[in-house]
Amino acid sequence: MKKAVTIGIDIGGTNTVMGVVDRDGNILAENRISTTDYPDIADYVAALHQAFTAALAEAGSEVELKAIGIGAPNGNYYHGTIEYPPNLIWEGVIPLCEMISKNVDVPVVLTNDANAAALGEMIYGGARNMKNFIVYTLGTGLGSGIVINGEVLYGSTGFAGEIGHIIMVPGGRDCGCGRQGCLETYVSATGIVRTVEELLAQRRDPSPLRKVPPETLTSKMITEAAQQGDRIALEAFDRTADMLALSIVNSVAFSSPEAIFLFGGLSNAGKYLFDPVEKYVNEKIQTIFKGTVRILPSEIPENNAAILGASALAWKEIEKQ
Amino acid sequence: MKKAVTIGIDIGGTNTVMGVVDRDGNILAENRISTTDYPDIADYVAALHQAFTAALAEAGSEVELKAIGIGAPNGNYYHGTIEYPPNLIWEGVIPLCEMISKNVDVPVVLTNDANAAALGEMIYGGARNMKNFIVYTLGTGLGSGIVINGEVLYGSTGFAGEIGHIIMVPGGRDCGCGRQGCLETYVSATGIVRTVEELLAQRRDPSPLRKVPPETLTSKMITEAAQQGDRIALEAFDRTADMLALSIVNSVAFSSPEAIFLFGGLSNAGKYLFDPVEKYVNEKIQTIFKGTVRILPSEIPENNAAILGASALAWKEIEKQ
Repeated sequence: MKKAVTIGIDIGGTNTVMGVVDRDGNILAENRISTTDYPDIADYVAALHQAFTAALAEAGSEVELKAIGIGAPNGNYYHGTIEYPPNLIWEGVIPLCEMISKNVDVPVVLTNDANAAALGEMIYGGARNMKNFIVYTLGTGLGSGIVINGEVLYGSTGFAGEIGHIIMVPGGRDCGCGRQGCLETYVSATGIVRTVEELLAQRRDPSPLRKVPPETLTSKMITEAAQQGDRIALEAFDRTADMLALSIVNSVAFSSPEAIFLFGGLSNAGKYLFDPVEKYVNEKIQTIFKGTVRILPSEIPENNAAILGASALAWKEIEKQ
Repeated sequence: MKKAVTIGIDIGGTNTVMGVVDRDGNILAENRISTTDYPDIADYVAALHQAFTAALAEAGSEVELKAIGIGAPNGNYYHGTIEYPPNLIWEGVIPLCEMISKNVDVPVVLTNDANAAALGEMIYGGARNMKNFIVYTLGTGLGSGIVINGEVLYGSTGFAGEIGHIIMVPGGRDCGCGRQGCLETYVSATGIVRTVEELLAQRRDPSPLRKVPPETLTSKMITEAAQQGDRIALEAFDRTADMLALSIVNSVAFSSPEAIFLFGGLSNAGKYLFDPVEKYVNEKIQTIFKGTVRILPSEIPENNAAILGASALAWKEIEKQ
C-alpha cells in the first residue's frame, strides 16, 4: 500500500515554500518558487503546480497524494480565496483553491498562517490531545489561531481569530490596520522594539541598545541584551509580558482554552518572556479559571512550521470527511 | 399523538421559576418556589420536583415531557453542577442534574443564565437561522452567551463566555470578582449608575439625578432622565455605549459573529443605547469586519426569558441526539 501524504504550501510575500508531508510530520520532499516573479496569478498557479508536482515526484513512487493545504495571508477557508492581501502582489479576491483544483483531483484547502500554525500544533505538536486551545504567533505582527471543540474558529466571515487586532489601549500606538492600540503594536517583535524606544526616552539607565539606530533594532538584540542583564531590555520584556498576560486572561474569559501556545520570534526569548507571562497571568486571572490554563511553547520547529501547518490543514480536511 | 414539551427552570437567588414549554415557545403552565426556603439542597430538590410535576399536570394529559433544562448562576453544563454560586444559599459544588435525574426519566441539563439566554434566542428568538452570534445580557452585571457553529461555547472548563469579566481598564473600577476594570463595572445597570456618579462629580450641569441618593439611583431613572434630554444621563449613555462598542469590536476580532444581541434592563433604553453603540462600532471596527455584524435587540420577551432560555437548553439537548 502506498504511503498517504499531503502537500503543505506556504505563500509568503517574497517566497512560496512547499513540502510533501506524511501523517507524522516528516517532510519527504521540498520545493520553492518566488512569489513576486508572477504578477499574473494564472502564471503563478502554473508555476506552483509544476513545483509541487516535482516535489511529489521527488518524494518517490510509493506515496499517494491525499490533499493540498495552503497557508496564505488573508486566506479565507470558507471560500478558498485570498482576499485583499496587504503584502502580496495580487489584488482583490483571488480564488486560489478553485484555480489549483482545475489540475488536481484531491481536496485543496486554504487558511491564514496563524490558523495553519494552530492546526500544525494540533496534528503534529503539543496540542495533539487538546480540543480547546489558542496559538499566539509572535512574529512581525501577532497572529492567532483559536481551536474550539477540535475545530479552528473561522466565525461567520472566515476571518475570526484576529486577537492581534483586539484594541488593548484605546488611543494607543498606531497600528498597521489603521486603528490605534491593537495588541500587536505592543506584543510582537516590532512591538517590543517600540517599547524599548519608549523606555530609552523615559529612563536614564545606560544600555547597549542606545547605540543601535531605532530602524535597525530587533527583538533578537533585545533578547541578547536581556541575557546580559540589561535593565532596559528586561523591563521591555516585563511590559510585553504584562500586556500579553492581560490578553491571555481576557481570551480565557472568552473561550476558556486548556492551553495557550506561544510560537515564533519573540517566544524564542524563553524564560525572559514565559516567566513574567506566567506571573502576570496568575495575578490577573479570574478566580473561576485559576489553574485551568497552561502557557506553553510551541512544539513545532520554527523553520518547518509554515509547511507543516499548511499540510496539517490538509490532514484535518481529509480526516473530517 | 401527544404534544412534546420541555420544562424550563430558572434558579434565582430569591425565587425559582419554572414553566412547561412547547417547541414554539408557548408556556403552557408555570409554577414557582422560594429558593431561600430550603437551606438543605435535598429538601429543595424534593420541592422542585413537586412543583414541576404540578405544572406538568396543569399543562394537561396531552403533553409528553422530553427533557428538563435549568438555568442557574455558575451552572456547569459539562458536569450538571452549580459550582460555588456567589448568590445562592448552598455552598460548594451541587450535583443538581444528578439529584433531579433520580426521579425523572428524561435528560436533565443545566447551564448558566446567559448561556440559557443565548439558547432562547437561537430556539425561539432573533437568532433562529444563525450559527454564530453572541448575546450580551445587561442586567445588574453583564453576562454573555457565545454561540459558535450552532453550539454554545463552553470551553475546556464549561465556564467560557465571561465577557463581562474581560478587563477593559487595567486598574479601573473595583469589580465583584475581586479584580478591577472588568467590562461589567462599566456596561450594566450598576455600571451606568457608577458612570452617572462620576459625571455628577466632574461636571456642573444641573440634573434631576443630583436629587437622588446614589444608593437608590437606578438605570431606569437614568433612561427617564435621558428621555427628558438630561445632559448627564445622555453623556452616561454615550460613555456606556462607547465601552460596549469597544467590547463588541474586540469580540468580533475574536470570533466574528454575524450578530450581537443586547438583552435585559439596560437594553430597554432603546435608541439611547443602540444609536451610539452602532456609531461607535462603525468607528472602531477593523476594516476586514466592516458590515459583517449586526447589533440587534433580543426578540425574547424579558418577563419570560429565564424560563424560555432554560427550556431552549432542553430542546437543544434533545435535538442534538
